[in-house]
Amino acid sequence: MITAPRIDADRVIADLRELAQRTSDEGGAQRVAWTDTWTEARRFLGELLDGVGASLETDEAGNIWARLEGSDANADALVVGSHLDSVPGGGWLDGALGVMAAVGILRAYADTGTPRPLVLVDWADEEGARFGYSLFGSSAFAGALEPGALSGLSDSEGRAMPNVLAEHGIDIERAPECAARREGLDAYLELHIEQGPVMEAEGAKVAAVEGCQGIERHRFTFRGQAAHAGTTPMAMRHDAGLAAALCAVAVSELPDQHGGVATTGELRLEPGISTAVPGVANLTADLRNPRADALVAMLEDARSGAGEAARAHGCEVLEEPVFRIAPTTFDPTLVAHAKSATSDATGRALSITSGALHDAAQVARVMPAAMLFSPSRGGLSHSQEEDTSVEDLETAIEAFGSLVAKVLAS
Amino acid sequence: MITAPRIDADRVIADLRELAQRTSDEGGAQRVAWTDTWTEARRFLGELLDGVGASLETDEAGNIWARLEGSDANADALVVGSHLDSVPGGGWLDGALGVMAAVGILRAYADTGTPRPLVLVDWADEEGARFGYSLFGSSAFAGALEPGALSGLSDSEGRAMPNVLAEHGIDIERAPECAARREGLDAYLELHIEQGPVMEAEGAKVAAVEGCQGIERHRFTFRGQAAHAGTTPMAMRHDAGLAAALCAVAVSELPDQHGGVATTGELRLEPGISTAVPGVANLTADLRNPRADALVAMLEDARSGAGEAARAHGCEVLEEPVFRIAPTTFDPTLVAHAKSATSDATGRALSITSGALHDAAQVARVMPAAMLFSPSRGGLSHSQEEDTSVEDLETAIEAFGSLVAKVLAS
Repeated sequence: MITAPRIDADRVIADLRELAQRTSDEGGAQRVAWTDTWTEARRFLGELLDGVGASLETDEAGNIWARLEGSDANADALVVGSHLDSVPGGGWLDGALGVMAAVGILRAYADTGTPRPLVLVDWADEEGARFGYSLFGSSAFAGALEPGALSGLSDSEGRAMPNVLAEHGIDIERAPECAARREGLDAYLELHIEQGPVMEAEGAKVAAVEGCQGIERHRFTFRGQAAHAGTTPMAMRHDAGLAAALCAVAVSELPDQHGGVATTGELRLEPGISTAVPGVANLTADLRNPRADALVAMLEDARSGAGEAARAHGCEVLEEPVFRIAPTTFDPTLVAHAKSATSDATGRALSITSGALHDAAQVARVMPAAMLFSPSRGGLSHSQEEDTSVEDLETAIEAFGSLVAKVLAS
Repeated sequence: MITAPRIDADRVIADLRELAQRTSDEGGAQRVAWTDTWTEARRFLGELLDGVGASLETDEAGNIWARLEGSDANADALVVGSHLDSVPGGGWLDGALGVMAAVGILRAYADTGTPRPLVLVDWADEEGARFGYSLFGSSAFAGALEPGALSGLSDSEGRAMPNVLAEHGIDIERAPECAARREGLDAYLELHIEQGPVMEAEGAKVAAVEGCQGIERHRFTFRGQAAHAGTTPMAMRHDAGLAAALCAVAVSELPDQHGGVATTGELRLEPGISTAVPGVANLTADLRNPRADALVAMLEDARSGAGEAARAHGCEVLEEPVFRIAPTTFDPTLVAHAKSATSDATGRALSITSGALHDAAQVARVMPAAMLFSPSRGGLSHSQEEDTSVEDLETAIEAFGSLVAKVLAS
């Protein structure tokens, strides 16, 4: 048996700072997938992996893989990774923490040797910031990508997603072929920041992740009658804006009964001027729950609430799904190892359900997967205020090393 | 005594159709003030007045005046008119009906002679469609215009209001000088469409207008904390969008207690995406009431509602006034004549309070004024669907002629 090496957390943090320096501007991190800055971030990853001596490949979906061979040539590989891409004006840790920690893992085991192969992955376009489609690379890997559904997507400048990907050497039609890489891989581990305030509130320095909430995101369109704000008596109105407002209030009360979270962050009124009763209102309800049955109940109650709100204001309501993903439960054995690793690092065996989506949720469809979370200061993410203390980062990176060692030894 | 002449309503309607043909496109009427199409509309007015033999002048604010002298050279003049300008894609009757009916009045009295002078006015820029400032010409006439407050206004292409007016021969600084025209004028009468559904619902073909509702239009800005829709527990949120939704519902209930109408037609969320709790929400409340004390109470209760909504969601709320005008009560003697004219025309003495603003509300500050309304099909206005049956138009135009005769004889 090979003794598990210690991960050099300071080196990982130094790599993160170097990455931030190379790929940020005064507005924050700019590692948006399918841009030059993202390519620059991945070039830096290549430099780091060169230093480790790991061979590097890019697959049909643009995911980057690096492999460190193990002493047992027939053993399946353990995969560690996350994503280098960011939102525009993002932070230095979202995604990058997991990739740089994975580099730290390979660097440590390159010195000591590893019983089973260790594979690093940098998933392509987790954020979906440019074309609105999240988890591109990990979806392709998990067999969940339908290229035909993406052919109509374009960025804010009207450039089509397939054309932009082609400039980066990706034939979008062939992206699903990367699923063949699953051969010889048997588990996936990812370190990420929480991107929420729960761990900070609980004083947690690192936590195991039980799974990711499922999401039902639906757009409700209320149709009433636009009318003059001065000349139309209240009793003769069909105010779509008030129907949407009532519906938003009803949606916000769903977690009281079902748990989870419910958000109405997008509401658009037409004509949307102060002197007209709104004739049309578009309200998007984002419902999340770790339990599948509760998520179904939330959606049913949201529909009832929308219908009641529409009737109360003499409007019609239409509904269209925007995004749906079932709740993900991570592999119980891996989660138990993750809890054990947090206990080793902090004396507390903490676990949490992720409110955000992660590549691990897609990977978990096709192989055992688990995650560790590091806390986020003030719960902030997707902004340059995103931060975690060096002490907490060190704790999380070392716990991640401990988790990898436990899985390799299991 | 001169016998009151009959107004040729068919000719007035023919003039309206000719105006629509000259100044509309497939999107509706395009007589937006300070544009070439508006100038074309006023050129057509000039042609019509030439035929009547009335002398025509434009004042310092761009209002057009035409005068028909009376047999008593020392008598004060009766003013009749409205506005030729429209919103973009507007209808054929809003404003134009009152101007063309006034032409019909002058045409009729040019034949028979008039005991007192009759003056036609076409107010400049009633709609405020291009620069967002309503009742420009009538405000200047009534001494309610402050040119300094308009110097910063610009159109959607960024062109400054003073520069555009200068191209139309108007020095905005001198616009208030048109108030000197009040000398020798002693009453104002205006025919307009209702722009609402009340008369149609009551089967009224013409109605006297008691006054115009006062308006308190205020923008409430709710400030909470933008946050991730998936990772932020409900109890830790400061959702500005929900605060605004609650406030909108509270505002909509104000007329139950105070009468009048209340509208929240403008609501903007930031960041305004489905995956983020809104950190900022801007809600504009448009409150209208014919009674000054009730309007004050509505505003007080709206402020209370905004404060309660903010507290319920852990937000702050700021308020800024957008537009305010006190309720207008038209001259009781003129309103009595107007009711009498509707009774003569239809057998019913009907009256209504205007929900919309009109030039007459400004004129009423400085001289006795009153209005007659013609019904609007389906209550629609400010769109090319705006319409009134020929029968109802004829009834209203003839009643307006009767009103003018009563005032001249009084």
